[in-house]
Amino acid sequence: MRNSEHLPTGAIQNRVVAEDGLWFEYPVRAHPHHTDYGGVVWHGQYIAWMEEARIECLRSIGIDYADLVALGCELLVVELSTRYHRAMRLGETAIVRTSMEPGAGVRLNWDYQIVPMEGGDPFLSARVTLVTVDREKGKIMRRLPPVLDEVLAKLTQTS
Amino acid sequence: MRNSEHLPTGAIQNRVVAEDGLWFEYPVRAHPHHTDYGGVVWHGQYIAWMEEARIECLRSIGIDYADLVALGCELLVVELSTRYHRAMRLGETAIVRTSMEPGAGVRLNWDYQIVPMEGGDPFLSARVTLVTVDREKGKIMRRLPPVLDEVLAKLTQTS
Amino acid sequence: MRNSEHLPTGAIQNRVVAEDGLWFEYPVRAHPHHTDYGGVVWHGQYIAWMEEARIECLRSIGIDYADLVALGCELLVVELSTRYHRAMRLGETAIVRTSMEPGAGVRLNWDYQIVPMEGGDPFLSARVTLVTVDREKGKIMRRLPPVLDEVLAKLTQTS
Amino acid sequence: MRNSEHLPTGAIQNRVVAEDGLWFEYPVRAHPHHTDYGGVVWHGQYIAWMEEARIECLRSIGIDYADLVALGCELLVVELSTRYHRAMRLGETAIVRTSMEPGAGVRLNWDYQIVPMEGGDPFLSARVTLVTVDREKGKIMRRLPPVLDEVLAKLTQTS
Repeated sequence: MRNSEHLPTGAIQNRVVAEDGLWFEYPVRAHPHHTDYGGVVWHGQYIAWMEEARIECLRSIGIDYADLVALGCELLVVELSTRYHRAMRLGETAIVRTSMEPGAGVRLNWDYQIVPMEGGDPFLSARVTLVTVDREKGKIMRRLPPVLDEVLAKLTQTS
Repeated sequence: MRNSEHLPTGAIQNRVVAEDGLWFEYPVRAHPHHTDYGGVVWHGQYIAWMEEARIECLRSIGIDYADLVALGCELLVVELSTRYHRAMRLGETAIVRTSMEPGAGVRLNWDYQIVPMEGGDPFLSARVTLVTVDREKGKIMRRLPPVLDEVLAKLTQTS
Repeated sequence: MRNSEHLPTGAIQNRVVAEDGLWFEYPVRAHPHHTDYGGVVWHGQYIAWMEEARIECLRSIGIDYADLVALGCELLVVELSTRYHRAMRLGETAIVRTSMEPGAGVRLNWDYQIVPMEGGDPFLSARVTLVTVDREKGKIMRRLPPVLDEVLAKLTQTS
Repeated sequence: MRNSEHLPTGAIQNRVVAEDGLWFEYPVRAHPHHTDYGGVVWHGQYIAWMEEARIECLRSIGIDYADLVALGCELLVVELSTRYHRAMRLGETAIVRTSMEPGAGVRLNWDYQIVPMEGGDPFLSARVTLVTVDREKGKIMRRLPPVLDEVLAKLTQTS
């Protein structure tokens, strides 16, 4: 017999909601495997969450990253700069907020803030810079593929 | 100005839905950092997803794992057994399905199946066995704390 | 002025030493990023160390895994079974001991024991089963490539 | 019969050698679990290697990080800045070179370069800034513990 009522859903919704202009939001929770001996999220873990937020942000505007890779185009991280403001503890939830700023030339700058879900001072702020690479040639694409160019414009335009 | 319309939500919903009797479901997507050189999810990554599903399953019945830890009680993995049926590729989505089976004595057996979100043959099946440990004493609790005992009963009872 | 004497080497030697018949040994140390909130190595971390020991064991008998992959041959984990005996704490060192047992047909069984470097009860015992896969076809190789067959024989023969 | 000769040691030596003045060196190899779908080391992985190099550098001058933690003192990452020059591929080996620069006040700046073991252009350069934190109070220590102060001086002094 089915009795799904026994399992009410109380978990974090990993829904991706856009708000606050051009910021994209990606919720996360600190699970045991994210933490270190200090009981807080290990400092390298945030890099993974920022990648996830980036991929889901692209998906939200119609870019499937796996498709992009299959087409021979890759987004490579070339710079990463992070400031850790305070520790996120086991069980805590946060919003990874990201916004793409137009960079110089082929560089795509993604700004990040990771803030407590219930509000308050941020855990972290960061910038990640990517370039588009031709997988076959292993070289930076001096011009973005048109399809990528168009959709990325959506992320950076103000209105 | 707010213009959230620029970012339609197309991302995976990490909603936690119960269905199929006593199975709990936790959706995941294969992001770049989950993959290895083969373009598929690295075999150790599934361990992390199974942990997340377990924690969220407990949350769905009213147990906050971080609270449990703060109370001096920990759930420790003592056995893990996994069969890999086929590879999950970059960008693919899956449901981590879990169900707790009553074990012998203080052992909690969690069964898992990770299946494609769109249906089809499973990627993986697994069993993870945990024991409840008193953090202070570093010893297995021969009897579950009453609060845990009650709520865990909800996961294993049929009705 | 150069004064390398200021930095005496006191660190763990990741030398790979064979001893005890057909066991291969790979030393590891529990660094902060390996631990979780409990101050001990997170249970999924051992999977990575066992992979490293496997790769280095193959290297020790003349198989460079990256070469194998470049040749279109991959070793895929199809089963994994682990028993956790006791927790390995931050800063502790251990030896990952592995031995390949001849399996049925194309299955390669690797047995593992992770033991404290200074001796004593093991932290973990495990078995990992792999199959050889043709990357192009995505299919299990019913016969091992001759080069692999020969060298693997070295791991399993007694003499 | 024992025949350890069957397993010659050909693996990377994780020996820690000081050279080039005040640089400390920590060798690593790109194993499957370090890579992503692109066949290269995932960009977040380097953060873990830099932590390992830092811990082993401290050990080489007599500081056991686990002891430090047990004494209630922690080194917390507050800033991290990384430039990725080129990708490190599966199976490749590298040296993580690190050097501690005296920072302003309580900040400890660690500079990094990850270079191919066989020489050539670096894979990555980075700086990681840490502060010493009193675990009990959760506050930055305005003065380093004397024992730490003394030994850290060894890392930064020229002679």
